[in-house]
Amino acid sequence: MNFADKLLSAVERVKNPTVVGLDTRLEYVPKAIVDGYMSECESPVDAACLAIFDFNRMIIDAVCDIVAAVKPQLAYYEMYGPAGFEMFRQTVAYAREKGLLVIADGKRGDIGSTSEAYSSAFLGRTNVSSDDVATFDADALTVNPYVGIDGLAPFIEDCKKYDKGIFVLVKTSNKSSVQVQDLELKNGGRLYEHVARLVAEWGGDLTGSSGYSSVCAVVGATWPEEAVRLREIMPNTIFLVPGYGAQGGGAADAANAFNKDGKGAVVNASRSILCAYMSDRWKGQYSENDFDAAARAEALRMRDDLMDAIAKIK
Amino acid sequence: MNFADKLLSAVERVKNPTVVGLDTRLEYVPKAIVDGYMSECESPVDAACLAIFDFNRMIIDAVCDIVAAVKPQLAYYEMYGPAGFEMFRQTVAYAREKGLLVIADGKRGDIGSTSEAYSSAFLGRTNVSSDDVATFDADALTVNPYVGIDGLAPFIEDCKKYDKGIFVLVKTSNKSSVQVQDLELKNGGRLYEHVARLVAEWGGDLTGSSGYSSVCAVVGATWPEEAVRLREIMPNTIFLVPGYGAQGGGAADAANAFNKDGKGAVVNASRSILCAYMSDRWKGQYSENDFDAAARAEALRMRDDLMDAIAKIK
Repeated sequence: MNFADKLLSAVERVKNPTVVGLDTRLEYVPKAIVDGYMSECESPVDAACLAIFDFNRMIIDAVCDIVAAVKPQLAYYEMYGPAGFEMFRQTVAYAREKGLLVIADGKRGDIGSTSEAYSSAFLGRTNVSSDDVATFDADALTVNPYVGIDGLAPFIEDCKKYDKGIFVLVKTSNKSSVQVQDLELKNGGRLYEHVARLVAEWGGDLTGSSGYSSVCAVVGATWPEEAVRLREIMPNTIFLVPGYGAQGGGAADAANAFNKDGKGAVVNASRSILCAYMSDRWKGQYSENDFDAAARAEALRMRDDLMDAIAKIK
Repeated sequence: MNFADKLLSAVERVKNPTVVGLDTRLEYVPKAIVDGYMSECESPVDAACLAIFDFNRMIIDAVCDIVAAVKPQLAYYEMYGPAGFEMFRQTVAYAREKGLLVIADGKRGDIGSTSEAYSSAFLGRTNVSSDDVATFDADALTVNPYVGIDGLAPFIEDCKKYDKGIFVLVKTSNKSSVQVQDLELKNGGRLYEHVARLVAEWGGDLTGSSGYSSVCAVVGATWPEEAVRLREIMPNTIFLVPGYGAQGGGAADAANAFNKDGKGAVVNASRSILCAYMSDRWKGQYSENDFDAAARAEALRMRDDLMDAIAKIK
């Protein structure tokens, strides 16, 4: 089964297009867990990594039966160096063990030979002596289109070979994405529309039995009108929609990324789920130590919120 | 001294604008070194990393008095996972110990909060408990402009705070960079020209006593005509010019990236230096075990080649 089919059938199974963003910062982890490791470990970096991994593991346990996928953001692991990458590797492995798909959020992309090496790291295999080693072995990776197709081709090759997926940045959720992505082109339309046409084209021969391609797109929930336009250009592309919750996108905004049949998109939330226990909505019901139960409650609330909004566009 | 001043004064000192790209693949490392570690180590990944680090160390020793900077490409370290990142960290530290500037080539870039974490990893500090830890502590990082300024601002902040630099992708060396970067805009000019104007603007308040900014640009040696145009748009920007040598750019092409005074650019070569011992030019004179001496000879030849070409544009 290719990546697109795996993702959409998992969403179908849990009836929830929510993706939990594992952008775990040390300050999200309950003090008792952090203090425990800090007093045990000689290196504060090792202690931080163990604490974050505990947090991730408990979040994964709490949501693995109600969501389809998690999306760890590489930056929050890279900032801890080699120990952070080991913790990233363990997080990916643990989530997959629990039946979740893992989207590694790294926004990678370079010239062809370099992208080959990135793809080996996250999607494919690294050849070492006579062995082929699966280094991080995520199910999908986010990538940046600025270099053009020859920089993305190695990822697409590995998607075919190992049933993996990529999510190409088309329209990002941040305000200043307009500075580059919204530029009007001489031949009509805006840059993000042009990139969208490229993504649709690049994904052509990775279409699964669902009708969707494993070459997917990132389209921020903060741009609902643009999402409608992008849906038209990329009818067979799965959208990963960041920006719901803490970044200001609502369910009605995110719903625009879906097709009229209510399919074809997943919506990411990070802080609003990981830190649900601190939120006005949940802090009365859950203590710091019940952060995982609060995350589950918020992921279920988000499911209902999204499903209601999607029902309205059908 | 800010990054721009440090880089340009180092180039002035060695009279060589060459940057050695440490894109070290296992197959570049002499068999005797690889086999030694493979028989010693239980894990072939650990053995590969030790072998690559030995190679990097010997290359650094061989060139540290004749070049200003090295540019390790993150992808070639990431493909080995956490052990690869440890080897990257050691490579950066060793090169800096030897007086070289280190440009971490990661093409990072994301929304603001995430770019903050990336910047902590490569340029700034990671706060852990009461400590501020310098994780990889490179001198500069390559970044991708597709997200716009709010995704680059955290890097720029750290450039100010810690005298670091960034190199923003403007025109990459690969053929299909035209698919996105060369798009013609409605208001005139091409996308890479628009990005160049943004880079010049973003770098405005990071100008050092050299007159150049620590917000630098990547402009491939494979696009000499575009480089001339980009020089006009970004007179006070340092260009990092990849694509010389193995990628097909010649010295005359690369020279177009320099200002008329012969300053303002550095030229990267990776394979042609690291694998000089395998090249038609040097393989008669150097054996596999003299790969470091061959690299030094090629870096000196490249210096002369570039300096001749630069003298012609003055």
